[in-house]
Amino acid sequence: MSDYGKAFALMRDAAQEPWRDYTRHAFVEGMKDGTLPCEAFLHYLRQDYVFLIHFSRAWALAVVKSETYEEMLAASRTVNGLISEEMKLHIGVCETEGISQAELFATPERHENLAYTRFVLEAGHSGDLLDLLAALVPCVMGYGEIGARLASEASSETYRDWINTYAGEDYQGTCEAVGELLDSTLTRRIGADFEASPRWDRLCKTFRTATELEVNFWQMGLTP
Amino acid sequence: MSDYGKAFALMRDAAQEPWRDYTRHAFVEGMKDGTLPCEAFLHYLRQDYVFLIHFSRAWALAVVKSETYEEMLAASRTVNGLISEEMKLHIGVCETEGISQAELFATPERHENLAYTRFVLEAGHSGDLLDLLAALVPCVMGYGEIGARLASEASSETYRDWINTYAGEDYQGTCEAVGELLDSTLTRRIGADFEASPRWDRLCKTFRTATELEVNFWQMGLTP
Amino acid sequence: MSDYGKAFALMRDAAQEPWRDYTRHAFVEGMKDGTLPCEAFLHYLRQDYVFLIHFSRAWALAVVKSETYEEMLAASRTVNGLISEEMKLHIGVCETEGISQAELFATPERHENLAYTRFVLEAGHSGDLLDLLAALVPCVMGYGEIGARLASEASSETYRDWINTYAGEDYQGTCEAVGELLDSTLTRRIGADFEASPRWDRLCKTFRTATELEVNFWQMGLTP
Amino acid sequence: MSDYGKAFALMRDAAQEPWRDYTRHAFVEGMKDGTLPCEAFLHYLRQDYVFLIHFSRAWALAVVKSETYEEMLAASRTVNGLISEEMKLHIGVCETEGISQAELFATPERHENLAYTRFVLEAGHSGDLLDLLAALVPCVMGYGEIGARLASEASSETYRDWINTYAGEDYQGTCEAVGELLDSTLTRRIGADFEASPRWDRLCKTFRTATELEVNFWQMGLTP
Repeated sequence: MSDYGKAFALMRDAAQEPWRDYTRHAFVEGMKDGTLPCEAFLHYLRQDYVFLIHFSRAWALAVVKSETYEEMLAASRTVNGLISEEMKLHIGVCETEGISQAELFATPERHENLAYTRFVLEAGHSGDLLDLLAALVPCVMGYGEIGARLASEASSETYRDWINTYAGEDYQGTCEAVGELLDSTLTRRIGADFEASPRWDRLCKTFRTATELEVNFWQMGLTP
Repeated sequence: MSDYGKAFALMRDAAQEPWRDYTRHAFVEGMKDGTLPCEAFLHYLRQDYVFLIHFSRAWALAVVKSETYEEMLAASRTVNGLISEEMKLHIGVCETEGISQAELFATPERHENLAYTRFVLEAGHSGDLLDLLAALVPCVMGYGEIGARLASEASSETYRDWINTYAGEDYQGTCEAVGELLDSTLTRRIGADFEASPRWDRLCKTFRTATELEVNFWQMGLTP
Repeated sequence: MSDYGKAFALMRDAAQEPWRDYTRHAFVEGMKDGTLPCEAFLHYLRQDYVFLIHFSRAWALAVVKSETYEEMLAASRTVNGLISEEMKLHIGVCETEGISQAELFATPERHENLAYTRFVLEAGHSGDLLDLLAALVPCVMGYGEIGARLASEASSETYRDWINTYAGEDYQGTCEAVGELLDSTLTRRIGADFEASPRWDRLCKTFRTATELEVNFWQMGLTP
Repeated sequence: MSDYGKAFALMRDAAQEPWRDYTRHAFVEGMKDGTLPCEAFLHYLRQDYVFLIHFSRAWALAVVKSETYEEMLAASRTVNGLISEEMKLHIGVCETEGISQAELFATPERHENLAYTRFVLEAGHSGDLLDLLAALVPCVMGYGEIGARLASEASSETYRDWINTYAGEDYQGTCEAVGELLDSTLTRRIGADFEASPRWDRLCKTFRTATELEVNFWQMGLTP
């Protein structure tokens, strides 16, 4: 399907059930056919803004944990994209919908939201760059897969802007770059046959847990 | 009620509602009158074992973040108590109930559990010792208050061992020591009138969030 | 002299002696009058490249430790400037001088260099954003002061490019932005009279130690 | 010679030159034959006290970075030994020599001292438990080797207490336990043939740098 690198494909295959629950969640299908209530979407968008604050901090931690200039550059580009672009997008959409910037910033963080970002950040703080990337990847790549699928399957125009963002060339390029970063980081530290390493199971478990926390996040989106 | 220091009393008063939900949760009342199903208790105990692993790591982080020998000593004593004593207690109780050590170690971590410990650890990693202590204190002190109350109010002997552990002199002494550590850490960094500092609100918010995550933990205990 | 904010001026005044040793070091004066041997300059430049790798990681840590969107934005702009621009500058100058990129990347890190960056990073990891900024500021601001002074005092054209970089509008703007970040971070966490806080002494001590490590760095520059 | 495990022996062999400079330093030989001036020894002891504060924090970080109960237990035992015992020993020796506890605590940290502990702590914060252990091991094991050798070679009684501490059963047992921890941590994460992993070179480089920083520390000891 997608071409986000070797490691991601292996990790996703090792977490098939939660991956399907995440990328085919009722929230996602509701964006596809336009049945998702606008209230739920805006609630999700506000929580996602809070999410992005901490997700950006987690990508900044990837810069801290880098061992090469290439790793630093790839991670810092993502931080920059998140802080300077994606977060501004949320501010814009919310303003159009009558949610002021002050209101957006003051959004109380839901526990399903908090659980996810703190898990990711802590995986990074306690481990090395690999442990962190395994926790960061499900969000990045899942949105890429969802965007690409909905771009061809959507039967409604209601959430077309959201879909286009993640189906677009820029975001798909980010997914490919992150896939390359994951593969090269694994190869540099473990070797080309990284899936044979004793660490592989733990990394796959981190990926799976982050995927489950994505499922909880969508579910939270349905209950404003 | 309890004498766990000035800062704790202030933080608890600023989080009255969640504090009551936590310390008077149905799970707690079920231990008091013995109506808590044994299955729920054992489920809780296994999750609590996983919790203690990460909670011990968080107290070890307090040693890393200490600025004085006294702070290091107080924090390392708590780490030691948790790892060498409290975790062994859980192993013992579980073995009595037919849950082997291997089974206990392999307990899958519930998301309500994960959310709590990762929030605490991340608060510490991203902030200083004060941010960490504000997140650590609700668990330590809440169990102290619950233990002390149930020791005098319990109408059933079923959970007497658990109650005695937290009502006992050792644990109450730990609560007092942690209360002193919190007060002295605040005074050293902020001054004697620490509650007037701009940081105080954020510290109280961290305390409140940790308290809410304790409520979720008890709730999880009721649903094995 | 410079207008890099209130806190910086206070911290500098509390570390007058090492600050003078740093900003008026023989290495600096040698750039001013052109007597600094080219070999020493290139040696310094290569070590400075290694320094910038870790200094960028430290600024990325400032993003991780931010509590507001403004703090994140200010810190991430600095990361970006360091990784995408300043490090490319070093690569360029070195190439002109016949030092290949591969050779530059392989520069063995001198202990005076390592001591400085690890001190800064560790101050950040163990403390909060304030502890980190107090360690980051001497490098940023000192170069700003040196550049500005040498722009008007230099009697030789030999090191004019280096001088212009740090005397230039871009770099001076960075110093002012970092000064504002330091002041606002202090005010947000401690209050407007931050210099009366018990933390102030420790922050000044961190600033002083980082300044002393800058002196060692210049000294190292004189001994290729 | 010593039996501190497989990985340590390999790492030491990969850093033969600095290892010899460290374990056979003039300071060490001066303790052996009693020619080391008492002033240098007391100066070293005071710096070593400051060193132990940060070294204990680094071992506490090893608890934070542990993935198993066994790893946590091994690391926390070392923290405890350092904080509750070794640091008390220094306090005692200094008091005997007329250096009060207050004076000891106020010892200004020399840059050679600071460089070493911040390097170790930062290696841990930026990497995983393996990166941290590679930086912690040279100090632990080197003192074990020095103590064992001097116990049989010393021609003077002047520094016999110091020698006996590190030659003693307790300390030698710690070295063996740390050797086992290093081997098991490597095997758990990388596999039994860990020296074939791409990570091995970096770990050996960390070990080597820490060893070089030990050489600087002894050298600093000679210059009160």
